[in-house]
Amino acid sequence: MKINGTHYRSIWPIGQDAFGIIDQTRLPHEFVTLTIRTAEQAAHAITSMQTRGAPLIGAVGAYGLALAVRGDASDDAIQKMVEMLAHTRPTAINLKWALWRMRGALLNQPRDKRAALAWKEAALIADEDVAMSQAIGKNGLAIIRDLAARKKRKLNILTHCNAGWLATVDYGTALAPIYLAHDAGIDLHVWVDETRPRNQGASLTAFELGSHGVAHTILADNAGGHYMQHGQVDMVIVGTDRVTANGDVANKIGTYLKALAAKDNGVPFYVALPSSTIDWTIADGADIPIEERSQDEVLKMPGRLPDGSVTVVEIAAPGSGAANPGFDVTPARLVTGLITERGTCAATPEGLRGLFPEE
Amino acid sequence: MKINGTHYRSIWPIGQDAFGIIDQTRLPHEFVTLTIRTAEQAAHAITSMQTRGAPLIGAVGAYGLALAVRGDASDDAIQKMVEMLAHTRPTAINLKWALWRMRGALLNQPRDKRAALAWKEAALIADEDVAMSQAIGKNGLAIIRDLAARKKRKLNILTHCNAGWLATVDYGTALAPIYLAHDAGIDLHVWVDETRPRNQGASLTAFELGSHGVAHTILADNAGGHYMQHGQVDMVIVGTDRVTANGDVANKIGTYLKALAAKDNGVPFYVALPSSTIDWTIADGADIPIEERSQDEVLKMPGRLPDGSVTVVEIAAPGSGAANPGFDVTPARLVTGLITERGTCAATPEGLRGLFPEE
Repeated sequence: MKINGTHYRSIWPIGQDAFGIIDQTRLPHEFVTLTIRTAEQAAHAITSMQTRGAPLIGAVGAYGLALAVRGDASDDAIQKMVEMLAHTRPTAINLKWALWRMRGALLNQPRDKRAALAWKEAALIADEDVAMSQAIGKNGLAIIRDLAARKKRKLNILTHCNAGWLATVDYGTALAPIYLAHDAGIDLHVWVDETRPRNQGASLTAFELGSHGVAHTILADNAGGHYMQHGQVDMVIVGTDRVTANGDVANKIGTYLKALAAKDNGVPFYVALPSSTIDWTIADGADIPIEERSQDEVLKMPGRLPDGSVTVVEIAAPGSGAANPGFDVTPARLVTGLITERGTCAATPEGLRGLFPEE
Repeated sequence: MKINGTHYRSIWPIGQDAFGIIDQTRLPHEFVTLTIRTAEQAAHAITSMQTRGAPLIGAVGAYGLALAVRGDASDDAIQKMVEMLAHTRPTAINLKWALWRMRGALLNQPRDKRAALAWKEAALIADEDVAMSQAIGKNGLAIIRDLAARKKRKLNILTHCNAGWLATVDYGTALAPIYLAHDAGIDLHVWVDETRPRNQGASLTAFELGSHGVAHTILADNAGGHYMQHGQVDMVIVGTDRVTANGDVANKIGTYLKALAAKDNGVPFYVALPSSTIDWTIADGADIPIEERSQDEVLKMPGRLPDGSVTVVEIAAPGSGAANPGFDVTPARLVTGLITERGTCAATPEGLRGLFPEE
């Protein structure tokens, strides 16, 4: 996707001993890129949310591991680094998927070839992610096209958090169908949940949609239910950090509330994901670990001052503490469909097995 | 209630030609009081949310009208002022209730007595509001006491927005039972929804509860559903701006989402209100006008800088707009009970008529 006329992916190799990312904590106020030279820097970029989005952090983890392998390619070192990196975002499964794939590609290979192999495999993971996003986009576009044909008017699509190209290597998951629909000339408007506490909607999704010229309006997370009650939401599409084998969906905190409102108002609720997001080992969303994050994310807020400089303000009553679960689990019964790179299926064991019979 | 050892109501007469309020837009960062000398200043205090909370703005409207009557006590002037003041918060019914009551108390009286009568009636409305809050507190306490006896452990109660003493003349509606339960030694903890976009939870409710020594934790509005799914919410209590004759509840935007989550998880969902909040003329919540507020409330955020000064930062992507409905309607089917000054009833026409047979 383009920023100020330059095409960017959200992660790119720099030679063979570093990679670049966009510092997403500085968006939308500043566009800053970072050069990552060690696995530890990669881990910090994930925990600090300089880089985020389930598919993207899979690629960041892969490149991070590839950097570590250049220093120490032993089985022990690889195992240790896989564990360290996997720990940085316990809710997301793509990260583990990418790290396990990297480990599998390296452990049975000669040590002196591992560094080059790791770099190649990380690049492959990134390229495959782009292809997956494009396929998800195409499959989601079919749903939007059908809806537009039925409604015969401008469509209003609500999304939560950021599952756009900034959350993947390019295109996005939830936003990929929206970009493709917009490019295909379908008249649509996106309701963007601001997505407290980190405001990924108001900052990242609005930034992405604005850069691409897609009509959109930011909402407090509280407002989506009201618009659904009044027929002003035709469809919800969100991304996910992990889908269980029964179709339960872990995603950014607050997704569950929007799914409830969609169900209550007959609004279709779709989840877009690459199949690397599916955790075939867990049958129930209650078993997904939910990351508890710092209370400062709730109590403090970054923003721009009138002079354009960026600062952080404290917004809550002094002395009051906050809780900050990063994710919640939307039960499969609230999900209309899972949009994957292979097609769209019901959020059921049968639906998932139908698309992925090899699992 | 006390602030720094001084007892305050949230509105107080100053002689007979002014009244005082707390500037709630400055909380929790600064404690500042305002002196209101004209009906126009009273109207501005409501629209700017310097004063807010459905019961409190009824009293502010009454005192505002009383100030106007001192200048011009004609029938026409009273009618004009009632309309001007009623327009300042279209969703809230208490305001209209208070203004109509004032008008009724004045129009058939000699003009030269109207100024003194108006002042007296406004004071009566304020005093009655305190008595109502105390009665609501007592009726809600009975529910909390039962729940504590059943659960035999610390109770977790979630509330949205601010329906505490800052929203009324004293004690509060939703928070009155919590204060009484706390004072009665019932072990409880309050989950405080921050309540975007204006953060009345994180700023006002947290400030109130902290000042009174009630254990509490601020949550992003997105998080409450997650805690309900995990059995960490025993009860929800909220206030309301208007209840229809069938039990539908207009309240701060986002209330509907919490009611859905409460229903989905078997968590009792109570609404606390003085009966002046009931609009007997409307049978369906869909007919309640919903105030659309400025997008700046979503796009900008006030907060404290490290040096203690207060500033406003822009938090969203530059160039993106926002929508900002102030309230939503929770259908009666999601409400466990309405806690009023006369007792608790089902959110049904029969329930309401049972408590208020005269209506």
